[in-house]
Amino acid sequence: MTLRRLRYPFTAVQVGPALAVLLATFVASFSESQLPADEGMWLFNHPPCVRLEEKYGVTLTPSWLLHLQQSSVRFNSGGSGSFVSANGLVLTNHHVGADSLQKLGDASHNYYRDGFMANSPQDEVPCHDLELNVLISITDVTARVQAAVAPGLEANAAFAARRRVMAEIEKESLLSTGLRSDTVTLYQGGQYHLYRSKKYTDVRLVFAPEQQIAFFGGDADNFEFPRFNLDICFFRAYENGLPAKVAHHLAWSRQPIANGDLVFVSGHPGHTDRANTISELIAMRDHQIPFSLAVLHRLEVMLTAYSAKGPEQARQAMGELFGVQNSRKAREGLLAGLLDPAIMRRRQAREHTLRESASEQETVSPWNRIAQAQADSDRVATRYRLLEAATGFNSQYFLNARTILRAAAEFAKPNGDRLREYRDSNRESLELQLFSKEPIYDAFEIVKLTDSLTFLVTSLGADDPMVQAVMCGQSPQQRAEELVQGTTLGHRSLGSHSIGSEESIVADTRRLLMDGGTPAVAASDDPMIVLARFVDADARAARQVIEASSEIKQQSHAEIGRAIFLREGTAVYPDATFTLRLAYGTVRGVPEKSSPRVAKADGLQEDGFVTTTFSGLFERATAQRNTPPFHLPDRWKSLLPRLEHDETFLKTPLNFISTVDIIGGNSGSPVVNRDGKLVGLIFDGNIDSLVLDIMYDDTRARAVSVAAVGIIAALRQVYDATPLLREIDNASGSSD
Amino acid sequence: MTLRRLRYPFTAVQVGPALAVLLATFVASFSESQLPADEGMWLFNHPPCVRLEEKYGVTLTPSWLLHLQQSSVRFNSGGSGSFVSANGLVLTNHHVGADSLQKLGDASHNYYRDGFMANSPQDEVPCHDLELNVLISITDVTARVQAAVAPGLEANAAFAARRRVMAEIEKESLLSTGLRSDTVTLYQGGQYHLYRSKKYTDVRLVFAPEQQIAFFGGDADNFEFPRFNLDICFFRAYENGLPAKVAHHLAWSRQPIANGDLVFVSGHPGHTDRANTISELIAMRDHQIPFSLAVLHRLEVMLTAYSAKGPEQARQAMGELFGVQNSRKAREGLLAGLLDPAIMRRRQAREHTLRESASEQETVSPWNRIAQAQADSDRVATRYRLLEAATGFNSQYFLNARTILRAAAEFAKPNGDRLREYRDSNRESLELQLFSKEPIYDAFEIVKLTDSLTFLVTSLGADDPMVQAVMCGQSPQQRAEELVQGTTLGHRSLGSHSIGSEESIVADTRRLLMDGGTPAVAASDDPMIVLARFVDADARAARQVIEASSEIKQQSHAEIGRAIFLREGTAVYPDATFTLRLAYGTVRGVPEKSSPRVAKADGLQEDGFVTTTFSGLFERATAQRNTPPFHLPDRWKSLLPRLEHDETFLKTPLNFISTVDIIGGNSGSPVVNRDGKLVGLIFDGNIDSLVLDIMYDDTRARAVSVAAVGIIAALRQVYDATPLLREIDNASGSSD
Repeated sequence: MTLRRLRYPFTAVQVGPALAVLLATFVASFSESQLPADEGMWLFNHPPCVRLEEKYGVTLTPSWLLHLQQSSVRFNSGGSGSFVSANGLVLTNHHVGADSLQKLGDASHNYYRDGFMANSPQDEVPCHDLELNVLISITDVTARVQAAVAPGLEANAAFAARRRVMAEIEKESLLSTGLRSDTVTLYQGGQYHLYRSKKYTDVRLVFAPEQQIAFFGGDADNFEFPRFNLDICFFRAYENGLPAKVAHHLAWSRQPIANGDLVFVSGHPGHTDRANTISELIAMRDHQIPFSLAVLHRLEVMLTAYSAKGPEQARQAMGELFGVQNSRKAREGLLAGLLDPAIMRRRQAREHTLRESASEQETVSPWNRIAQAQADSDRVATRYRLLEAATGFNSQYFLNARTILRAAAEFAKPNGDRLREYRDSNRESLELQLFSKEPIYDAFEIVKLTDSLTFLVTSLGADDPMVQAVMCGQSPQQRAEELVQGTTLGHRSLGSHSIGSEESIVADTRRLLMDGGTPAVAASDDPMIVLARFVDADARAARQVIEASSEIKQQSHAEIGRAIFLREGTAVYPDATFTLRLAYGTVRGVPEKSSPRVAKADGLQEDGFVTTTFSGLFERATAQRNTPPFHLPDRWKSLLPRLEHDETFLKTPLNFISTVDIIGGNSGSPVVNRDGKLVGLIFDGNIDSLVLDIMYDDTRARAVSVAAVGIIAALRQVYDATPLLREIDNASGSSD
Repeated sequence: MTLRRLRYPFTAVQVGPALAVLLATFVASFSESQLPADEGMWLFNHPPCVRLEEKYGVTLTPSWLLHLQQSSVRFNSGGSGSFVSANGLVLTNHHVGADSLQKLGDASHNYYRDGFMANSPQDEVPCHDLELNVLISITDVTARVQAAVAPGLEANAAFAARRRVMAEIEKESLLSTGLRSDTVTLYQGGQYHLYRSKKYTDVRLVFAPEQQIAFFGGDADNFEFPRFNLDICFFRAYENGLPAKVAHHLAWSRQPIANGDLVFVSGHPGHTDRANTISELIAMRDHQIPFSLAVLHRLEVMLTAYSAKGPEQARQAMGELFGVQNSRKAREGLLAGLLDPAIMRRRQAREHTLRESASEQETVSPWNRIAQAQADSDRVATRYRLLEAATGFNSQYFLNARTILRAAAEFAKPNGDRLREYRDSNRESLELQLFSKEPIYDAFEIVKLTDSLTFLVTSLGADDPMVQAVMCGQSPQQRAEELVQGTTLGHRSLGSHSIGSEESIVADTRRLLMDGGTPAVAASDDPMIVLARFVDADARAARQVIEASSEIKQQSHAEIGRAIFLREGTAVYPDATFTLRLAYGTVRGVPEKSSPRVAKADGLQEDGFVTTTFSGLFERATAQRNTPPFHLPDRWKSLLPRLEHDETFLKTPLNFISTVDIIGGNSGSPVVNRDGKLVGLIFDGNIDSLVLDIMYDDTRARAVSVAAVGIIAALRQVYDATPLLREIDNASGSSD
């Protein structure tokens, strides 16, 4: 349940753990075998052909690769998926669809909790602000980007020059191809590739099971194995009001997975830190992750407390609470890795070797420059996260206000000089978010904003001049009420639980202000715009420091990268960047070890196995007395008398594990076999996989997938989803 | 559900918000009336007779006071109660009894959740480590304490001298009377009183309802009104194996409470900060409370996640989780008050006036000295809380190990030179805790210790030398496993969920080490003793700084106090110190105000009323669809068909509010009428009462009580508790 990429506030630049050139692979330390471990999140234009040939005797053909690439789908809400029919049917995880399911709900519909099934295209429900991307082509533009940054430029000027040329490349590409165009920074500035994607913004919900079965075992079983989760969701991409005709889609394999099978995963790992230097890892360990955890802990408590007020409040907070718990557990796991001296020693040894060998080539300084840049960014990190990443202003209204405020300022500048998210080529995506019809619940916004303003004030101190401007002499609660009740910058829900109810019907002025540009925005006295104005200078100042250190880090990492290329050759993959990657591995169990986590008395299966079944699901529910989070949905319970006697169904694989190298953002990624047929769907990693962020290890780390055969069985036996099954059947051709 | 005093680790000195002389009353700012508001937590040897005479025409006679005083009971686990029969029957809150209920449970008994009823004395269950105190006498020993501290002594020496004379007084008193003897610091050092108490350590559980009805509405309704809670629990004090014959107990009133009634509360408010200077309040606002909240947030998340693993884990964590949520909500409320500029302005104005008037008498410096002492203690506060208050070592095993380690060192010193908790007069109470048969669950301890070690490492930094000694080159998880699995210093539970199960049967060596003294302890290689040794020097060092600043604060506050006495006379009460206090007030509603918290559609009653009824309870459960935390216990559900047609029962008051001045620690306090008869039982304050820590206000702040008539009705109609009802009846004599 893991792997949904954290959804960054869409106006924020990527920050945190540095973006750094890949420090090659760590194979030697981890594998007894002569052959490299199943490590790597590979670029589709640099696939690991040689390794696969050598280790598995498999040849990846260009057409096999293209088919998989163009069958893969990126969810802008954070996550991956794949086309599974020629009519734009998309398969992903329930928890990747969660954001859309949550936003589609209202006081009388809880699609997120209760699921949804469209029996015909007319029943499919349009999502509010979901964008899907399909990668069409990759072009190396490194030379052009590097040429635009004159050597010796001061960091901020270098950053600006780089941003300018990237925006230029993107705009040209958009104009000439009509495709979404992103200049992607790889190997932390070692390379720049232009990714062109086909974009779908009319996306409709087709099918979702109940959250109980998608997330069976809840937070307790999250990041664990064995798992028993039907973590699936179907959407459909539309074009011009009709189901999209797509060039590539995946056929389903009818064969259950078996121990030792070679599998491939095509998806969008969000972020890894494998190339980070020790100074960067220490900053993660001592500052970034503890800060994130403090934020997540308070969010989790606040959301849980709000949910306890009643069923409608629980519904409003459900998606966010899931996301927070998921992130919290992932970061706890990563922090545990960073606090494990054995793991740090390996990373230190690696850096030591590199620095020694680099020293011979007299390039030792990049590590020190990175450490210095890290220290610079640490100094502004708290302000950056509170102000620019908006942790201090937890309200969609505020994010909308800031987008509008900045759009007025940024769109007045030349394309290349703007904050990156305001570049012309991104405008459509930005507006999709800004004008979302996602319902906003004022009572909930007040609770969130009160909590985050309290955090802001206690973090920066009540006497900080900017804090005093922001608070206007009020308490966090008073200020939050005034701001939320006074703004018109969102789609206010008029449900019975919103404060002020009827009288709060006000115009939503987002588009008016966007169209009115600078004069309209300057004249606006919307309290959220006013707030965003108070914050803007400080937020931008913090961002500038972060950007400058990130520029220094990029240049330094590029240098380190060149040292690595010299030493170890070019068969390396870059750190994850939420772009499409190919990974591979085998279906393999975890070595026996008496684990305190798994009490066999609870009906769990033996260690060492690779798949769970529906039979295991029912046993686990029974062993845990069917109490939450181990309770079956009503539909499942009512069918139990029949299902429990269906031996074929009971034995059908539900989840399986493999050594594939994945991370958050890979959620929903298709798992395919050598023939490129769908055998599963990534949805989680086990607890040992949480350190994959900083280091691959196949000893115990495993990716967890929903089995394709399990999905078919559930759709048939439990959901009676005939149209969906027919479509999948047609799309899959003759059985394999 | 509020008011249970936080149970401090019993080895820790009281720290945090300074202990300061009461700055008189704030009446003028809050009350339109000519008469003072119902403010004050009054000493039984300085009761507010004049005020009561003037405002209510009531005369408190010495016998009335003595009767109430000696009917009142202090729970050493944090909370208050009262004798309600001559045979030692004690009434308190369910949440005050929670600690004992939790410890009495095991894998097959969940008394905390499911309740308990003894039908005869033989069925009453002895608690593991519960101590009750009844205040017998108060003697002013100020002169002797002050005389022992020579003027001009350096702070640490002055602190030691004061500690020495206090221990001396206590030991003399214990030897001469056999009573528990505590020298209590009042008015922050303005006065010292010797409190002699009768102590009961054989305390048995008699009756508890289900937690669902005791805490109906859960965290959502905690600190709110209207409430519908049967938050009661009965214990019995024993002496020599027989029910204790007590000299005083309260009779029950048969009259329901009415709007405007004058009521009295006798209980043990834990801690208030009304006399704090602005510099101390700012330290609370900017450091102490944010730190506490960060700790509480992570504890709440950890306990919630552990509870989700299964019913047995949920049972183990239940009491602690409740306590953490309760503290968290209380501190959020207090922080909200401190962040309210209007409240801070009032406190500033008050201090300004005092400083101006003091200035005329040339004693302005104490405020500055306090600010300086506060800054000193702020500098070590994090280390103090992690090491000395043991926030970094969240395990009962660790607390036991440290008590043993320090006992060896301290008991070798003269009585007066020891850390205060090791004074001779406290030894019996200390050993009651140390040798508790409270079951410890290793899997749970490992989770708690892993979490707190992680917090320790990230707070002090992985490179801190003491941290490195503590961690022994291991990760928090590895270290926690090693420590917990290796120690023998606690009553290890062998339930199926403890790690290692059968093979972990080891001797419990607590008594052996305590009896063996220094040589035995020095020779011990119990890993928890070893850990406590690593920590001890640093912990003591931090404590010494805190004690020195607290000494300076005491002296300064005493000076301020003299200035106040000169200006405002002596009719003032000291800040709360978990000693017996008398408070009073009237049953009064909260003025109308459209409250976003109370949605009338949810079946809640109108604003402005003072009591809720059983009828309201049933309506609230129905309106919330009987889903947790608004679900009735099975017993109640099964009786609903009868109860819902019993008009008398339906109209019986269940909870009521009053203006009485209470705070955490008052939970379980008896509420009596003019005749000294029991009309209720304090169990909560509303959300507006959370600032009472720093300032009394009767505009909206209210104490919430269980109505005595509601208790009787529930015992009769729902629990069929005939023996208990007969005992109460006999004890109450003829009806009033």
